[in-house]
Amino acid sequence: MKAPLKLSGKPGVRGKIEEKAEIAAAAARVLSGLSPETRGKALGAMGAGLAEHRGRIVEANRRDLEAAEEAGLSSALVKRLRFDEEKLAETRCMLTTLEMQRDPLGRVQEARRLDRGLVLRRVTCPIGVLAFIFESRPDALIQMVGLSVRSGNALLVKGGREAEHTNRVLVEILGDAGVQAGLPKGWLAALESREDVRSLLALDSLVDLLIPRGSREFVSAVKDSTRIPVLGHADGVCHVYLHADADTDKAVRVVVDSKTQYPAACNAAEVLLVHRDAAPRVLPEVVGALERRGVALELCPESAAILGERPSRTVKADSDWSVEYLDLRMAVRIVDSLETAVDHINRYGSGHTDCIVTESREAGRTFLGLVDSSSVFLNASTRFADGYRYGLGAEVGISTGKIHARGPMGVEGILTYKWLLEGEGHTVADFCDGIRRFEHRDLPEEVGGLYGTG
Amino acid sequence: MKAPLKLSGKPGVRGKIEEKAEIAAAAARVLSGLSPETRGKALGAMGAGLAEHRGRIVEANRRDLEAAEEAGLSSALVKRLRFDEEKLAETRCMLTTLEMQRDPLGRVQEARRLDRGLVLRRVTCPIGVLAFIFESRPDALIQMVGLSVRSGNALLVKGGREAEHTNRVLVEILGDAGVQAGLPKGWLAALESREDVRSLLALDSLVDLLIPRGSREFVSAVKDSTRIPVLGHADGVCHVYLHADADTDKAVRVVVDSKTQYPAACNAAEVLLVHRDAAPRVLPEVVGALERRGVALELCPESAAILGERPSRTVKADSDWSVEYLDLRMAVRIVDSLETAVDHINRYGSGHTDCIVTESREAGRTFLGLVDSSSVFLNASTRFADGYRYGLGAEVGISTGKIHARGPMGVEGILTYKWLLEGEGHTVADFCDGIRRFEHRDLPEEVGGLYGTG
Repeated sequence: MKAPLKLSGKPGVRGKIEEKAEIAAAAARVLSGLSPETRGKALGAMGAGLAEHRGRIVEANRRDLEAAEEAGLSSALVKRLRFDEEKLAETRCMLTTLEMQRDPLGRVQEARRLDRGLVLRRVTCPIGVLAFIFESRPDALIQMVGLSVRSGNALLVKGGREAEHTNRVLVEILGDAGVQAGLPKGWLAALESREDVRSLLALDSLVDLLIPRGSREFVSAVKDSTRIPVLGHADGVCHVYLHADADTDKAVRVVVDSKTQYPAACNAAEVLLVHRDAAPRVLPEVVGALERRGVALELCPESAAILGERPSRTVKADSDWSVEYLDLRMAVRIVDSLETAVDHINRYGSGHTDCIVTESREAGRTFLGLVDSSSVFLNASTRFADGYRYGLGAEVGISTGKIHARGPMGVEGILTYKWLLEGEGHTVADFCDGIRRFEHRDLPEEVGGLYGTG
Repeated sequence: MKAPLKLSGKPGVRGKIEEKAEIAAAAARVLSGLSPETRGKALGAMGAGLAEHRGRIVEANRRDLEAAEEAGLSSALVKRLRFDEEKLAETRCMLTTLEMQRDPLGRVQEARRLDRGLVLRRVTCPIGVLAFIFESRPDALIQMVGLSVRSGNALLVKGGREAEHTNRVLVEILGDAGVQAGLPKGWLAALESREDVRSLLALDSLVDLLIPRGSREFVSAVKDSTRIPVLGHADGVCHVYLHADADTDKAVRVVVDSKTQYPAACNAAEVLLVHRDAAPRVLPEVVGALERRGVALELCPESAAILGERPSRTVKADSDWSVEYLDLRMAVRIVDSLETAVDHINRYGSGHTDCIVTESREAGRTFLGLVDSSSVFLNASTRFADGYRYGLGAEVGISTGKIHARGPMGVEGILTYKWLLEGEGHTVADFCDGIRRFEHRDLPEEVGGLYGTG
């Protein structure tokens, strides 16, 4: 077993990071007061900045790619790291989409007349200072920066060492473009090292939300080492359950896609549960299709007996059903009922994404109702659990927590709201003394409108 | 300075509490699948149970009251502790209201067609297991229990020692009534001691949300000692700011009500900020009215110079503007601009509730926009910051955090959602290969409807 990651800051570094966070907190207060137009303009300027400095970006990326190849990183990692003209075009397009998007701030979520001349409104506003700690993909950085500007949040970022040069140039270009378009200095800042991150975790009075993306160990260690709220997921142990009446063709399609379409993703399936009554009919077909895609299987004894021996099949030796393979491997277990499948998922799963394949509307409803995961699917690949595919626009990340935001999060995940009450000198005493009475009349015509952005 | 509270569990107690929490977690899974009717029936049965056992409740409360008087508790505390026929009637009425309320579960918040035969819905669901740790008011317990049933959450509770007998009887009556109406055993359980609470804080895999209500030290200690998300507030350092053009009558009404209508409440104002240009005109009137209500003032040197000496006035010796008096005391500071007032509030306030008194629409908008608090008011007493007054129905509590729920929280604060996707064997590969394209067509006609509660 690995020793647990320890995350507690060094006093020397702390001062420097505290200063960055203080500047970011001051910037956040300015950002929350900027007009939608200024923030929109900044998004436009950021896209233009990327185009203007494409040479510098590609050059910095080349250095990271060379270092990655020297260090012998896997080709998949190198691919994620690459930031070429195509990625540049994609990210500029994403920034344009955000620029054109309806502004998410100052939106009235509830409006209620409490009394004559006394109106309450619940209005969206930024959270304040976000910290985004992520791995190698430089386009994830640009997406998060864009979302922060759209939502009026200040942002501290720390990327993976593999993309060090690319990220540094990107933060500089995007930060400068924002400032020139009217954002406050320090609205975007980079942390340089793990040590910086450790120091940051202590700054719960300055940083409002942490969004870590990385290994299970890293996300868990972050959660353990801070009072700052954390949004994200440590694991993606996703399941596909084939019910007794599962259609074979749908089963094959859904399982193969869930497992093989992109096995390294958090929403790829790791465990296949099969109802005993479906197993003889459906399992051989599904397993055959998986094997043709190169998937190795870890079988429970019962499924092993049904399927027979093959080099790609082993009998699962342990009872640990919470393994996240992130690879072309899959565990298979026979269950005796829908309820057993639900219990298995709620017990061993990670609350990420789980799917049932069935022709029965009732079985589907039961599964969707009882599985306690952020995304629960009927006859659809687990790989659909993604902000873009859900139609959320850019994605902040996927949360397996139940507080604030759950599942794929769009810009909503980095917004909060406040309650605004406007009166004419109203006092609570008048209501307690019976001089006035609460009306509590909802004002639906105001909901969704803009407020206070002039 | 007091030594910080230490909250880490003893191994002996841990097993017992873990068992209770495991039973609650199992109960939560059952609760999430119950029909709205069953949960409604349980609320009705709980009200009937309170009526039936009123003798036992009053008798238990008498024991607590006697103990409180023996211990010399303040009359205010004793009053909060009292659970008489009137309180019984009020709480039964509250349970009836919850019983009649539209069910908050299974509501569609978003619906979107991703493709032919592929529909995504975001649907409300319970959070799971809540833990409510509160002080003496037994009616707060009943309110929280009612809200938990309405929202399908299991609940662990720990009340103050002063109300020990009352709370024990109430939990027994409410728990049994719920079980007889069809709720699972263990859906409601009481923790007996501080030691129990300490053990509970380690159970982040079983408990989904902590709602502590109590002293600043206690709430802070809870936050420091757990990975479980915490909703609540440690402080209520609320401000009233009188702008240069403040109407004197409104200023007097709002300040007097904010400070004196119930000084022990978290939404009572502690600090009065006055624009320099308004001070000579408005401050003497406001201070006169406060003094007639027995309020002692701590003045900044400038306001002291304007007001002159009086026994109820002292010059504020320190620069600590974050004191929560919870008493008939108030600090006064002259500021030279709206911006200074906003900065003061964002720096020294607790993000609870802050108010501006002004006749200027623009100054009001600026203040409402820039003050980073959960409730921000224009010309209205800070005492309005309350779930009942906001028209939320029963109140879970007030949160000064920015994550999940902010300000007064109704039942929404103890709900989450999940994403349900229904397809016909859809795969992501088809979309990547260009065989299918995302439609992302919103289905507004489905939003707000009920889903999956049959």
